[in-house]
Amino acid sequence: MLYTGGQRKDSTMFVKEMYELGSTKNSIMELFEYGLEKAAVVGRENIYDFCIGNPSIPAPAGLNEAMISVLKEMDSLSVHGYTPAAGLVETRKAIADDLNERYGTSLRYDNFYITCGAAPAFCAAVSALAVENAEIIVIAPFFNEYRPYIEKNGCKLQMVPADTENFQIRFDDLESLLNKNTQAVVVNSPNNPSGVVYTRETLEKLAELLTRKSEEVGHPIYIIADEPYRELVYDGVEVPFIPTIYPNTIVCYSYSKCLSMPGERLGYACVPDQAADSADLYKAIAGAARVTGHICAPSLQQLAIARCAHLRPDLEMYDRNRKVMYEALTSYGYESTRPTGAFYLFVKAPNGNAKEFSEMAKKENLLVVPGDDFGCPSFFRASTCVNPDMVDRSLPIFKKLIDQING
Amino acid sequence: MLYTGGQRKDSTMFVKEMYELGSTKNSIMELFEYGLEKAAVVGRENIYDFCIGNPSIPAPAGLNEAMISVLKEMDSLSVHGYTPAAGLVETRKAIADDLNERYGTSLRYDNFYITCGAAPAFCAAVSALAVENAEIIVIAPFFNEYRPYIEKNGCKLQMVPADTENFQIRFDDLESLLNKNTQAVVVNSPNNPSGVVYTRETLEKLAELLTRKSEEVGHPIYIIADEPYRELVYDGVEVPFIPTIYPNTIVCYSYSKCLSMPGERLGYACVPDQAADSADLYKAIAGAARVTGHICAPSLQQLAIARCAHLRPDLEMYDRNRKVMYEALTSYGYESTRPTGAFYLFVKAPNGNAKEFSEMAKKENLLVVPGDDFGCPSFFRASTCVNPDMVDRSLPIFKKLIDQING
Repeated sequence: MLYTGGQRKDSTMFVKEMYELGSTKNSIMELFEYGLEKAAVVGRENIYDFCIGNPSIPAPAGLNEAMISVLKEMDSLSVHGYTPAAGLVETRKAIADDLNERYGTSLRYDNFYITCGAAPAFCAAVSALAVENAEIIVIAPFFNEYRPYIEKNGCKLQMVPADTENFQIRFDDLESLLNKNTQAVVVNSPNNPSGVVYTRETLEKLAELLTRKSEEVGHPIYIIADEPYRELVYDGVEVPFIPTIYPNTIVCYSYSKCLSMPGERLGYACVPDQAADSADLYKAIAGAARVTGHICAPSLQQLAIARCAHLRPDLEMYDRNRKVMYEALTSYGYESTRPTGAFYLFVKAPNGNAKEFSEMAKKENLLVVPGDDFGCPSFFRASTCVNPDMVDRSLPIFKKLIDQING
Repeated sequence: MLYTGGQRKDSTMFVKEMYELGSTKNSIMELFEYGLEKAAVVGRENIYDFCIGNPSIPAPAGLNEAMISVLKEMDSLSVHGYTPAAGLVETRKAIADDLNERYGTSLRYDNFYITCGAAPAFCAAVSALAVENAEIIVIAPFFNEYRPYIEKNGCKLQMVPADTENFQIRFDDLESLLNKNTQAVVVNSPNNPSGVVYTRETLEKLAELLTRKSEEVGHPIYIIADEPYRELVYDGVEVPFIPTIYPNTIVCYSYSKCLSMPGERLGYACVPDQAADSADLYKAIAGAARVTGHICAPSLQQLAIARCAHLRPDLEMYDRNRKVMYEALTSYGYESTRPTGAFYLFVKAPNGNAKEFSEMAKKENLLVVPGDDFGCPSFFRASTCVNPDMVDRSLPIFKKLIDQING
């Protein structure tokens, strides 16, 4: 008779934490799936789904053109064969050239390790830094998946509470968390979920603090700059390139948002020469990628990016949604910092509790994400990467909700 | 003054193991890169490179056709948008249908978790099983990357020595390694590097042993079936589908070899319903994938496999190389088990030491991989996924080498 199991519940056949992470969904996915189910009942046009941060503008035409030309013109073994573990030299060169041109840097192709999007780059950086008792600091509000990425790759997550006035950084709180175990501070600007861009002044102050603290503790404290929204900015706002302000920076990037290709999963970790122990840190990141079985990112996407790294998105639709929603919601009495980046609006729940507000909104088929998982429970996030028509039709519901609350 | 670092050598800024894994290359990559350098000096036609297991036949025409049609016909947001974490339902259905048709199984789409090739599926399975003191057994000769995949994802690697007569399984040695900490046994058939396919008899004996031992230790001992070479077989040899023989099997697969698309990185972990605690194990694998940042495998590759899962390779070139090399080398006096799968020939070093033999061969610009890293140091591996012309031109060198040794 074959063993038919059932030990997990009482003993330890699987790793409990992995099981739980694979069993649970974050609040965004839960709401999103609720929306799909409800849409099947009430009709798609009657659901106002502001949950998901999924690009809603098509990829630039150049992306498909590049992919088709690669498929038609290159020989099969070159298109579909293994790339080097760290990625094709031509792809990494195109990325370095693009950044150097924009930021006056001197990056070389071998500062880059190509990955399947920014998340694997982030996780590999965490793994590389996960020495005994390592701590990594995040600044609220923060992308909810940072928690498993940090905690399950060997580091302790420490959180700086949100600056709910301007969504910059509460430096006193940050300073009190920095200690000899601090390996890195995560910076995500333009920010998900706040839509705010850290100013040059904020970043310079951060660099000054980390430089001083690195000297105090006797080792570099890195910035992990998670920058998938780098090119999504409005009103001509500057997004400083962090390595030019603080050399001990590991950049994690994805083309998901910029080129509307989140499904294609292409990004990189960049360790500039100026970072402390640059070459060794790069190798530790490469080793961390290797032990997850994730080297040699998909070749067709790499070949496409070698041809498309310089393309920029047409942000008109996001910008229009951003303006319309910000103006309308604040005119109704909602409080929000005007977002100048990414594709989110982060709004104070008018009843003071975003979870309750989200439930109220859900009854009206309006889906917004409560800020709890972002470390900021009095705010909710509304994505602006949505259909402009849906934005227009949703405004009366936003108005109705705040009027209900304010009686 | 900015901190300019340098603590790693004396203290612990990075994880030492990750640094080392990112700093070192395995013997295959070292030889391969040596070959490229030497080719630049002596000419590509004068290097006889049998190191790399990289498909040398083009992908079936259907693959490019499917990709181009997806790019031309589907709308951008559907092609390039995020897929579900576990992969597109249509892709998983196509994979299930193909296997069900061939093996009479009843797999459903939700038994599959799509990954970037077999390696990430393997690593996620290891992570999911990595409870305290977990051990995973590999059978020599084995793919060299199993060691970091197992050891750096929380398990202890135990090795069954090679059966150098037939390259099946030394069951007495396997049985002596099985204990209450054993979570899984890795089966890789058709085998890299031996090119041997495990017979149905071998697999049935393995199933009987693991069933008995699972009962003894009180929990299931899984098989992790790493099957990237499943369709690469010759002489009409049968490759039994292991879940039909032993239900507690996790299948890891990649389309890399079968469809000559190693660079595109598409594969899956499959947990059949019949496996003990199937649904929970699947979730633990999903959680393990999530914490490396690797969910939602690349969409274009998924869309292509939804259309191409039924395609099979034209193996004529591999088969021809296999026959020519096996016949020639054994006629010169080399000893080898006739391979019937994959694209490798595993040959006893005529001087008894494959590392020394590989060095001797290197002086003649003939590159073969010593078996040390495969756990079988008296054999060398020669890939047959190479140019037939190179095979023909290399034969006199193989002859010269054995004649030198035999005086």
